Amino acid sequence: MAEDIRRLFEPRAVAIVGASRNPAKIGHKLVDNILASGYKGSVYPVNPSGGTVLDLPAVPSIDAIDDDVDLACIAIPAKFAGEAVRACADRGVPYVAVITSGFAEVGALAEEREMVAYAAERGTRILGPNIFGIYSAACSMNATFGPRDIQAGNIAIITQSGALGIAMMGKTRAENIGVSAVVSVGNKADIAEADLLSYLADDPATKAILMYVEGIQDGERLVRELREVTPRKPVLVIKSGRSRRGALAAASHTGSLAGADEVFSDVMRQCGVLRVDTIAEALNLSKFLATSPRPRGSNAVIITNGGGIGVMAADAAERFGVGLYDDLATLNETFSDAVPAFGSTRNPVDITGQGTVDDYRRSLDAALASEDIHSVICLGCETALLEPEPLTRTLESVAQRAASDTPVVMSFLGGAAMDVVVEELRPRGVPIYGDVYEAVSALGALYAYERRPATMTAPETPADIDGAAIREVVDSARAEERGFLLAHETRALAIAAGIRPPASAVASSMQDAVRHAEAIGYPVVLKVVSRHILHKSDVGGIALDLEDRGELIAAYEAILHRCRQAVPHAVIDGIEVSEMVRSGTETIVGARRDPSFGPVVMCGLGGVYVEVMKDVAFRAYPLDRAEALTMIKEVRSYPLLLGVRGESRKDVEAVVDAVLRVGAVLAANPDISDIEINPLVVYDEGEGTRAVDVRVILDDPGSGGDA
Amino acid sequence: MAEDIRRLFEPRAVAIVGASRNPAKIGHKLVDNILASGYKGSVYPVNPSGGTVLDLPAVPSIDAIDDDVDLACIAIPAKFAGEAVRACADRGVPYVAVITSGFAEVGALAEEREMVAYAAERGTRILGPNIFGIYSAACSMNATFGPRDIQAGNIAIITQSGALGIAMMGKTRAENIGVSAVVSVGNKADIAEADLLSYLADDPATKAILMYVEGIQDGERLVRELREVTPRKPVLVIKSGRSRRGALAAASHTGSLAGADEVFSDVMRQCGVLRVDTIAEALNLSKFLATSPRPRGSNAVIITNGGGIGVMAADAAERFGVGLYDDLATLNETFSDAVPAFGSTRNPVDITGQGTVDDYRRSLDAALASEDIHSVICLGCETALLEPEPLTRTLESVAQRAASDTPVVMSFLGGAAMDVVVEELRPRGVPIYGDVYEAVSALGALYAYERRPATMTAPETPADIDGAAIREVVDSARAEERGFLLAHETRALAIAAGIRPPASAVASSMQDAVRHAEAIGYPVVLKVVSRHILHKSDVGGIALDLEDRGELIAAYEAILHRCRQAVPHAVIDGIEVSEMVRSGTETIVGARRDPSFGPVVMCGLGGVYVEVMKDVAFRAYPLDRAEALTMIKEVRSYPLLLGVRGESRKDVEAVVDAVLRVGAVLAANPDISDIEINPLVVYDEGEGTRAVDVRVILDDPGSGGDA
Repeated sequence: MAEDIRRLFEPRAVAIVGASRNPAKIGHKLVDNILASGYKGSVYPVNPSGGTVLDLPAVPSIDAIDDDVDLACIAIPAKFAGEAVRACADRGVPYVAVITSGFAEVGALAEEREMVAYAAERGTRILGPNIFGIYSAACSMNATFGPRDIQAGNIAIITQSGALGIAMMGKTRAENIGVSAVVSVGNKADIAEADLLSYLADDPATKAILMYVEGIQDGERLVRELREVTPRKPVLVIKSGRSRRGALAAASHTGSLAGADEVFSDVMRQCGVLRVDTIAEALNLSKFLATSPRPRGSNAVIITNGGGIGVMAADAAERFGVGLYDDLATLNETFSDAVPAFGSTRNPVDITGQGTVDDYRRSLDAALASEDIHSVICLGCETALLEPEPLTRTLESVAQRAASDTPVVMSFLGGAAMDVVVEELRPRGVPIYGDVYEAVSALGALYAYERRPATMTAPETPADIDGAAIREVVDSARAEERGFLLAHETRALAIAAGIRPPASAVASSMQDAVRHAEAIGYPVVLKVVSRHILHKSDVGGIALDLEDRGELIAAYEAILHRCRQAVPHAVIDGIEVSEMVRSGTETIVGARRDPSFGPVVMCGLGGVYVEVMKDVAFRAYPLDRAEALTMIKEVRSYPLLLGVRGESRKDVEAVVDAVLRVGAVLAANPDISDIEINPLVVYDEGEGTRAVDVRVILDDPGSGGDA
Repeated sequence: MAEDIRRLFEPRAVAIVGASRNPAKIGHKLVDNILASGYKGSVYPVNPSGGTVLDLPAVPSIDAIDDDVDLACIAIPAKFAGEAVRACADRGVPYVAVITSGFAEVGALAEEREMVAYAAERGTRILGPNIFGIYSAACSMNATFGPRDIQAGNIAIITQSGALGIAMMGKTRAENIGVSAVVSVGNKADIAEADLLSYLADDPATKAILMYVEGIQDGERLVRELREVTPRKPVLVIKSGRSRRGALAAASHTGSLAGADEVFSDVMRQCGVLRVDTIAEALNLSKFLATSPRPRGSNAVIITNGGGIGVMAADAAERFGVGLYDDLATLNETFSDAVPAFGSTRNPVDITGQGTVDDYRRSLDAALASEDIHSVICLGCETALLEPEPLTRTLESVAQRAASDTPVVMSFLGGAAMDVVVEELRPRGVPIYGDVYEAVSALGALYAYERRPATMTAPETPADIDGAAIREVVDSARAEERGFLLAHETRALAIAAGIRPPASAVASSMQDAVRHAEAIGYPVVLKVVSRHILHKSDVGGIALDLEDRGELIAAYEAILHRCRQAVPHAVIDGIEVSEMVRSGTETIVGARRDPSFGPVVMCGLGGVYVEVMKDVAFRAYPLDRAEALTMIKEVRSYPLLLGVRGESRKDVEAVVDAVLRVGAVLAANPDISDIEINPLVVYDEGEGTRAVDVRVILDDPGSGGDA
């Protein structure tokens, strides 16, 4: 994959279709930016009227270029763009960036699909349409109509929004953040995020990847790619359209359906991707993650000259998942010589308002020298003792010494003097922030990255699923053009899937009933089976909680007697003998085909927890046992499964098993769109579960795919 | 109260005890700042060695001043400060600001209390100790050792942390935010936030009040004051020590116990106070709230040139509680002439990337002219069409026109060009932000302020509480030096409080039992009452769910028979006949004496919801019915009381009633520290509740007050 997409990032020659002498035109700006950025390959302006564009001779058509054009940028109106793309495809150009807008985003979906299909047949891949272009530091090429001066660096940006992408490019420049690549993917008619990740994972310059996403089409592939990339480099994502209203706005402006926000969040966590909300946050965190060393462990120490900000930082540490070191003896040993006598060696380490620049230096050095301290939050409030110049020098030298093995974040708060320190150090790459929460959130993001899920072990598909039996059930429902399974079909499917429904059998005689009951084990439930009796309980056709043979026989006779009296003409097909389900902890476990991510599994605590509290967690399928367990633990009411009020621990492993089974069944049967077990009753450890109610929905046969 | 504290903010003459010629001394800095700030009253440096301080003649002692000194600032070491305070008190100085540190915060609590007590006896009030002073724009007085140049304006700051306070003063200056007052309250040995609020509420210059709080001592009074102030002016609070770790750090550094964070959050909401986390956020929101007009209604409109940021803003609007207007017909009518043809008049109103400054002007004018649009979020991404100079002019003029009646927030994102626009407009008071979320959060804070609770109606204490009976129960337990109530006492208290426990009576004969059961209503429960039988169920001394007279008689005889067999010597005192409690929705309702806020009430859904989900809400007592209902609605599982799965609505009013009753009982009985009803079973609307289990804890008699 990486080799495949390399020529998009490192083209040997570039053609600009629609290159123009008019500086107001995008086709001019593109040529200008490419030339200004120091691109070393050949640049071919294409313009049927000939002449020169920025001193380069224009060629009349793409066919007239006698060179290996790896990338053609199309910057002509939509009505001509299709023709230009076809010409590039015919010529064998491997990558065409269709800058032009006016395709799917304005409803012209057919034109867009046609263009991509033509190109695909000839091995040409399309970036866009509706994009501002691509910047790649690897070949010093700024093939965008965005800002002219881009600073090469180590953050790669992939953006679905053109306007936000250009704004982000501007913002990186203004904040002295270097980028390794910026790719505008626009309508993602062909090339999407998933195509670009493996190149960026291999690219030595790229240290962090930031994606702005509004909607995802092929989420399954994206998940696979992200799982490959995140162990190697941090990936951050801004996903707008969180809210219902936002999703509506996103759909209207990009034409891509924004998936359910909760699913997105959970799946990104599963992939080890950090989700952020704002552009400012995204750039801050990307910059820090791209440059910070990895912590050797979880012990963070706060060094401060003010109690108040120390407390705020402790609050922020809890919120952002930064663990504060609290071995008081070691802290005292580490800092007793460094901290003034009136200060505190506890964590926050407080050099107090009388603390000098030298006290900072000594405390920070002590922290960096300690084997037991793995990251440092250095804070200060403005005091008369903190002169900007020596403070700046000291903090910079600390940052340099820490650079190889200890993450350090800093925040200095106050008036102009502290602003000077922050503004001097930030552009030099020192992670110093005006706000305490901002500083701690950066360190928190680093720790969140460290805590990402382990690489997935071979996804475990339970071996004892009877796929043939399941297919048979589904096929027979399909043959009758039903969109759902009947009760006996669902039961057959559940048994074939190894999801244990309550044991049950239909008896045609009393001896039969006794035999079944003894096989199932008392207590049992009896229910009349008759096509003429719909409301079994109304006619006394049900008997619950039958504890022994005597009760069973009496109930059997009573049911027959009552039913014959109530519905004299009824044909009684038999009496169903079922296991009486013991009460336990009710959970919900399900799998569905998500419009963005394909097969996803879900779990939560059952009953009102799901209905009222929406207390559920999701994962993309496939997943391994460890990840399924992580998902279950994310459910807020998870402690119920550990046992509350002196109850014993429930069979969590059996819930994991049910999750993997429903996922495997859904993934193997494209006709199934939804499986839900609600409730899945969970018993004490080792005693398993019972799938009391299972619901299976088949895909709408007419939809031809995703719901 | 306001008149009372006026001379602290507007002293006619100020003395500085410890005034010094040495510029490194705080006593020098104070005199220097007071003179530099343009204070018009008299300034008296006090220094026993005489001479002059900054050209003012120093007096040897406070007694030597022949003038009405309203404020004396003490800036001498702690060991001399007490003596100086006593001299001021003897002299009748009404306010003494004890700058000096080294009191309660380092453990010298006795010295601090002694100093305050001496002053209080002579009518002198103490600010501090351990503070940086006070700034008051009302008399142009900067009596602090913080920054010299403070810009007068409309935000009042009260801070418990000196270092953070000075840093905030610096920050306001750097960001061109004017302040009306800055008061450092430090250890709050005497004067606390509650003393200052009414003056600031009356002060015409103050438009918003920002408090930094670590701990609260007299929360009841603070709640009363805040309830008076917030209908007149917005109040914001930063409360650090949110996390357990943070609270620990806060306690160690100020000596004040940080109350439970959830209680604090809920009580602030009850008072109409906005809670914020970070200094940057606090200053941003304070500035916006101090200057923005109030919205006429809830309809907000987003105007943008980029779909992506429009979507982000819609997400942010949902998060921060800003309602987006969605009457498409009116939107179209309003914006169809203003928005370019290729744009969208839906909300977000999108002038697209081809939108010009003029398109912004037309769209914003259309929004401001509309009766139906009540607030505007104006966004932009950098494009070649947006030249900074005309854009700045247009946005400023829009902000001016909107200033009287429509809140407008703006965010423009991009590189240097957009930064120029933001940096030009911010200091001129235009609410423009670099980040979309920041802009929308400001508008959200304004709407949150608009939605603050209504002024409390007369707090409703249920009239039928039998206070005398409750006192009798409590006194008898106290007389026995018990810290809790026995079952029959709790029952008597509950009945006297009007909190209905299940009906119950002890029968001494079978006729008696039948009579009781018929009075209570079947089904009933029977339980043996015998001092010799501790474990009633072990000996068959309990019978549940007796549905009629026949079952009752049989069970009565069976219990007597079984008990006599099992414990032949037992003296049977009688048989208790109780109401068989129907199942319903289990809630928890309680009241406790909070260390910060005094009497608080609490409610939540019962059972595992409380234990596992911590799903409860709090309010300070007293409160009215409306606020009690608001509290109940804040519980996440509240929908359970509205009825789920086709159940009917529960008797929420009866829960409100129970909340007010437990609050009233706790408030009226200082000996009670805790009342908890768990579960309070709630039935369908009109059917009331049953207090199945009530627990009452008395205050530790030795503690002399708060637990």
